[in-house]
Amino acid sequence: MKEIRYFYVPEPELSELPGDEAQHAMRVLRLGVGDELVLVDGKGCLYDAVITEASNHHCRYRITQSRPQEPEWHGSIHLGMAPTKNIDRVEWMVEKATEIGMDHLSLLDTQFAERRVVKTERLERVAVAAMKQSHKAWKPVIDELEAFGSFVKRDDLPEQRFIAHCYELGSEAKPFLGDVLASKQPALVLIGPEGDFSVDEVRKAEAAGFRSVSLGTSRLRTETAALVAVHLMRLANR
Amino acid sequence: MKEIRYFYVPEPELSELPGDEAQHAMRVLRLGVGDELVLVDGKGCLYDAVITEASNHHCRYRITQSRPQEPEWHGSIHLGMAPTKNIDRVEWMVEKATEIGMDHLSLLDTQFAERRVVKTERLERVAVAAMKQSHKAWKPVIDELEAFGSFVKRDDLPEQRFIAHCYELGSEAKPFLGDVLASKQPALVLIGPEGDFSVDEVRKAEAAGFRSVSLGTSRLRTETAALVAVHLMRLANR
Repeated sequence: MKEIRYFYVPEPELSELPGDEAQHAMRVLRLGVGDELVLVDGKGCLYDAVITEASNHHCRYRITQSRPQEPEWHGSIHLGMAPTKNIDRVEWMVEKATEIGMDHLSLLDTQFAERRVVKTERLERVAVAAMKQSHKAWKPVIDELEAFGSFVKRDDLPEQRFIAHCYELGSEAKPFLGDVLASKQPALVLIGPEGDFSVDEVRKAEAAGFRSVSLGTSRLRTETAALVAVHLMRLANR
Repeated sequence: MKEIRYFYVPEPELSELPGDEAQHAMRVLRLGVGDELVLVDGKGCLYDAVITEASNHHCRYRITQSRPQEPEWHGSIHLGMAPTKNIDRVEWMVEKATEIGMDHLSLLDTQFAERRVVKTERLERVAVAAMKQSHKAWKPVIDELEAFGSFVKRDDLPEQRFIAHCYELGSEAKPFLGDVLASKQPALVLIGPEGDFSVDEVRKAEAAGFRSVSLGTSRLRTETAALVAVHLMRLANR
């Protein structure tokens, strides 16, 4: 069985592979004029294409067919997450969440965060590789690090939004996320850093319409909690 | 807030920390006589203890209280998995599955596996670290690599057992694992290698009472599929 090779081409109408994809096609796979490609735009469409020109640095193609894909899940899966001290842990979370299904990742600068800088280019590369590897047509949108306080007040957030944390601030126990996620609705879940959100941050989120939830009885690392949240959203959206 | 330090002591009645835990207690944490310890036996019990003797290579203690823990989940969560070519991917799966909740990991030698040797000592260390980090009292049992054919015929497997694969062999579509897992019952799910199980292996498993299932519409890597299966079993057992 011949493995299909996907190339990430955010602007397929340019008729030329981006630099790193062109390198990979020509230098690694040694493709040439007449060879077939499958392009993915990361926004839901695959394209069949044929190489028309291959030079040292350029690989041009002609699109023979565009194939819009049916979404694998309904609603929209949005994760807001404080980056971990060790960035590898965010990277694998991005890989796994992309495989399982995630539309949007927001990185949050929180009070107790142990990391204040994130290079989203690396996360982008991980997401692109995972999208191609899992034959998806959508790439998660990854936002630059944003202050928690301004993020929770954004007016483009879904109505169904949750904040997962370890405090018991109300008179009642927090519900389990899996029990309160509505089916097939856009959802957003926030996951705090190693030291959790601050109580002040939780209050701010609640004031901005977020509902406090638990992810179950297990004590989870930040990146594990993030993946569990994505999987629960994915299960509610299948 | 003082972080509780857990020491893994499979045989607490010996009144002495195992070598690596003793090193850690004395050389890294610089604990001495009179300092308090929390021991975990990996089989469901925590112990409060006090150091009674600390020499170059030995750290002896006296147990002051034994605290049997309530299980976090019902049933029993058993994963059978073909190891991946890159062993790091099995290691992180073990870390994450231990956090989320897993009782038993069996490593399977399958026809299309790209790895025939697994050092379980390393996986043990990852499981112990994750158990301590997530404040669990149970350590997953990790079996040595076993031939698929003999594993599926073992007579100590749970009644509720599944094999996840990508074939469509029957006349009906495979059910989604999350839809057929009975609540609070011991369960076992098998996950194949990068190249999937062979059709012959699937037939053998089915003949041995395994039910074929799907893990949803997403194309998942072996270790992601394994983690998704563990999470689905955990959700059915809470």
